[in-house]
Amino acid sequence: MDLAFEHDTLGQRILFGSGKAAENLAAEVARRGAAAIMVISSEAEAQIAASVCSGIAVALNYHEVAPHVPIEKAVKARTAAAEAGIDLLICVGGGSTTGLAKAIALTSGLPIIAVPTTYAGSEATNVWGLTEASRKSTGVANSVLPQTVIYDPELTYSLPAELSVASGMNALAHCIDSMWAPRADPINRALAAEGIRALALGLPLIKADLCNKTGREQALYGAYLSAVAFASAGSGMHHKICHVLGGAYNMPHAETHATVLPYVLAFNATAAPEAAARIAAAFGAATATEGLNSLRDKLDAPRALRDYRLEEANIAEAAQLMLPVIPPSNPRSVTSEDLEQLLHAAWAGSAPGLG
Amino acid sequence: MDLAFEHDTLGQRILFGSGKAAENLAAEVARRGAAAIMVISSEAEAQIAASVCSGIAVALNYHEVAPHVPIEKAVKARTAAAEAGIDLLICVGGGSTTGLAKAIALTSGLPIIAVPTTYAGSEATNVWGLTEASRKSTGVANSVLPQTVIYDPELTYSLPAELSVASGMNALAHCIDSMWAPRADPINRALAAEGIRALALGLPLIKADLCNKTGREQALYGAYLSAVAFASAGSGMHHKICHVLGGAYNMPHAETHATVLPYVLAFNATAAPEAAARIAAAFGAATATEGLNSLRDKLDAPRALRDYRLEEANIAEAAQLMLPVIPPSNPRSVTSEDLEQLLHAAWAGSAPGLG
Repeated sequence: MDLAFEHDTLGQRILFGSGKAAENLAAEVARRGAAAIMVISSEAEAQIAASVCSGIAVALNYHEVAPHVPIEKAVKARTAAAEAGIDLLICVGGGSTTGLAKAIALTSGLPIIAVPTTYAGSEATNVWGLTEASRKSTGVANSVLPQTVIYDPELTYSLPAELSVASGMNALAHCIDSMWAPRADPINRALAAEGIRALALGLPLIKADLCNKTGREQALYGAYLSAVAFASAGSGMHHKICHVLGGAYNMPHAETHATVLPYVLAFNATAAPEAAARIAAAFGAATATEGLNSLRDKLDAPRALRDYRLEEANIAEAAQLMLPVIPPSNPRSVTSEDLEQLLHAAWAGSAPGLG
Repeated sequence: MDLAFEHDTLGQRILFGSGKAAENLAAEVARRGAAAIMVISSEAEAQIAASVCSGIAVALNYHEVAPHVPIEKAVKARTAAAEAGIDLLICVGGGSTTGLAKAIALTSGLPIIAVPTTYAGSEATNVWGLTEASRKSTGVANSVLPQTVIYDPELTYSLPAELSVASGMNALAHCIDSMWAPRADPINRALAAEGIRALALGLPLIKADLCNKTGREQALYGAYLSAVAFASAGSGMHHKICHVLGGAYNMPHAETHATVLPYVLAFNATAAPEAAARIAAAFGAATATEGLNSLRDKLDAPRALRDYRLEEANIAEAAQLMLPVIPPSNPRSVTSEDLEQLLHAAWAGSAPGLG
């Protein structure tokens, strides 16, 4: 097959180390220089943020963070940054917190240092999102990509087990869908495969012990790679299915991803032998499907859409909504019957890849 | 083992496609906009450059390229660029040509689009080099990193077989040495492993047929990854050994790398089981050493330093020169006896890894 692709590598500095967030942040701020720093975190993570920022001078601590970045919150934060003469943004938290920093950077061009506390991955992408009148708009701008990311696995120790598993499976979905997404290329695939390896190693260790160091390190590292690969490759069949389920049927994000993923993998694997072989190797399993199913068992991950408010009667309609958005790049062509069959299996939680 | 690292991902746009150089270049120039373009190529590659640039308006064609970028050539080229009011540099060629473009960018800040015709890899690094009074100085500056690289494997079809093999083995050395170089990290290792996979697939196809499309695609893609990994990880034991051999004994660059590599791999592999397992998997071989030796056999690659002007009597001295520059990060501690033994084996071309 021809090797032809277009790949934008996003320039970013990564500092990774357990228990090193405060030290790495202080060194990075000293290296860059900054006159007035704004630190963004949710109220709930204010203490974590204070501890991470213990070695730097902060001009403004800001806590008005809300999911999906409502536009009025963004405007208020932008004004606060401008009034305080801020020249560096630091965000400590998950996707919503990083999202608010990006909303400020989008209009101000201010640089961001991100210190993630979850597996959301927003810190490694140039995608921003804003919500106005209940409608979310998203866009891509390199100005919102954090220039430096400081990963400290110890900041994730307090993520509960269920959320760690669901969020980790969500990251795994980014990796697997990157194999056949519209802008999939060999570089993304290599990074995604490394992400799968790390997540498959880390998540079971976390399941057994939330404070397992290697588990938290590998899961966070894998989540970072999943975001890099996904940002570059775009949304594949899996994400299109999950967006419909989330948007039209209000299903929970991470759980939906965790549930649907094995069925999409089983559906595509036979038509994408190279991707399947890579995924299998990354899992250290005989086949891709076997690797994912075995991980799902180990993690006792979500496994049936009926457990998350999907009515069986909605499946035919859902398939009709999904059909037009499945990317043409998908390795196997998809009919509405295929989608219905897949959704029925995922609804019931029957073994993926066995018919 | 703890996961702690510092990784600078260099932002760069890659356009890869066989026979697409002219088309991709025209599209990229249109996308960026440029008022006055300077195209740099050697005299020997002037025709290739003209063909690649057939779709764009060129303000200045420049051919005064020399190996190792002599400072007077750099000054002259900088002046020419300034006088012509150049706002975009395009270099079409190998390491020396890219090097001259970097020398201009270093003082002017002009952006570069690189169109490589060899496996040198300079286009994917932020390293520059200049030679003054026979002394080469090198440095690192993000301003010299080409913003866009256009890879067209067809431009490499004319690279002769011996040079393709030696240069490909040189790229392979970048990948393998990245596994244990001073700034080695899991991201570099993943990219290096993908580079090994691509080079091990591509080079034998080229050896059999210089115009094999898949062979040229995979080798060029692998050479790109090797440069990315190496620029990030730095020089390991292998490169330090080769620098001494090149500098003190005037041995040829690519051939020296090809010859020494299997011995360094065999020496380090037992002490770096994780790296060795990755390398083995990338080769699709039972062990790393077996994979590299088998590739070397298939390629009939250079295999004895005595074939390239090294005197056996110099080995003890060479080992003394090497000992202080072996990086402390090397997975196995190194004595001068180790180095002498390694050099004796590489000098004679005896089977690496067998004592």
